[in-house]
Amino acid sequence: MAGYNLPPLARLSDAFARLPGVGRKSAARLAFYTLSMSQSAADEFIAAILDARNSLHYCPVCQNLTDREVCPICEDSGRDRSVICVVEDPRDVMKFEKTRDYHGLYHVLHGVLSPIDGIGPDDIRIKELMTRLSGNEVKELIMATNPSVEGETTAAYISRLVKPLGIKVSRLAYGIPVNGSLEYTDSVTLSKALEGRKEM
Amino acid sequence: MAGYNLPPLARLSDAFARLPGVGRKSAARLAFYTLSMSQSAADEFIAAILDARNSLHYCPVCQNLTDREVCPICEDSGRDRSVICVVEDPRDVMKFEKTRDYHGLYHVLHGVLSPIDGIGPDDIRIKELMTRLSGNEVKELIMATNPSVEGETTAAYISRLVKPLGIKVSRLAYGIPVNGSLEYTDSVTLSKALEGRKEM
Repeated sequence: MAGYNLPPLARLSDAFARLPGVGRKSAARLAFYTLSMSQSAADEFIAAILDARNSLHYCPVCQNLTDREVCPICEDSGRDRSVICVVEDPRDVMKFEKTRDYHGLYHVLHGVLSPIDGIGPDDIRIKELMTRLSGNEVKELIMATNPSVEGETTAAYISRLVKPLGIKVSRLAYGIPVNGSLEYTDSVTLSKALEGRKEM
Repeated sequence: MAGYNLPPLARLSDAFARLPGVGRKSAARLAFYTLSMSQSAADEFIAAILDARNSLHYCPVCQNLTDREVCPICEDSGRDRSVICVVEDPRDVMKFEKTRDYHGLYHVLHGVLSPIDGIGPDDIRIKELMTRLSGNEVKELIMATNPSVEGETTAAYISRLVKPLGIKVSRLAYGIPVNGSLEYTDSVTLSKALEGRKEM
């Protein structure tokens, strides 16, 4: 486009396009919006990024995000230290905490095994999990990775590593979602729901 | 959620949620992603924002974004200085430039009149447009605001201001989009397309 070559705008748009779930069009819209922001709004946006990155880190025990040295869940003496729920992502911890039905500990893998993307066992926090199992405190590992191919593979991989240690490994139940509709349930899920049916 | 109160994370999530088209869930995802970025990726993201905001500004003539003192379109002696295409947004200029069919000048309003949102004539760049019309150079104003209620209102408002100066004011044609389907064309558009029909 004649006369419309603005490298700083293209660079900003590219930066937004690298964020997950942001397409080319949204990235351009966000870039223009960023330029139209007031100075104080722009300052706050950048300060929020820097503050979060500087003040938060991963808990050395469970690898969840925290602003303390060790996260409050790992330090909470009221939690059941014999169970560890293994999740992919810090957001999954929030989901489980919201249920208020889980009182054990967590371990955040920060990803799943994905050979296609070149992500192997050393790229996610499996080593850190194995270290936690070296004592005799942990009796059960709940594999709560996603029901995707990668999530299943990761659960199976860790299960194979852990079982020889005499630790029980369980997997979240599959079935129809509560308040879901059979009409929108895929047949694999329905088969799993049938298979896992319980007497009423 | 017990043990999951991270103010810097909430602040970052809020900052993302203020961006246009970013909902609560996307904002949370973007916040977590920002925390997982490498230091160099985070530095580049912030540098892109600061660089774009520092090096780009609005052209004092047409109000379009530019990295020069006056934008290249306004300075281009090959452009027809008797026509000004009035648009809402810098992105609209890019759209028109892409057609390669328009060789006049532009004026970017940076918004539209919207009484509900408290946006009046002094909040968009109408004054700057009127200043440009004070010479005798401009013969036609093409109102290219969006075919929304606000876009129409703005076009009508500016038209009423400008016509007494003896300047022709035109509006983009309405009709069915090329390669569009009649099936998905609303009846107002279809009426406009009928009304504006041309002999073949």
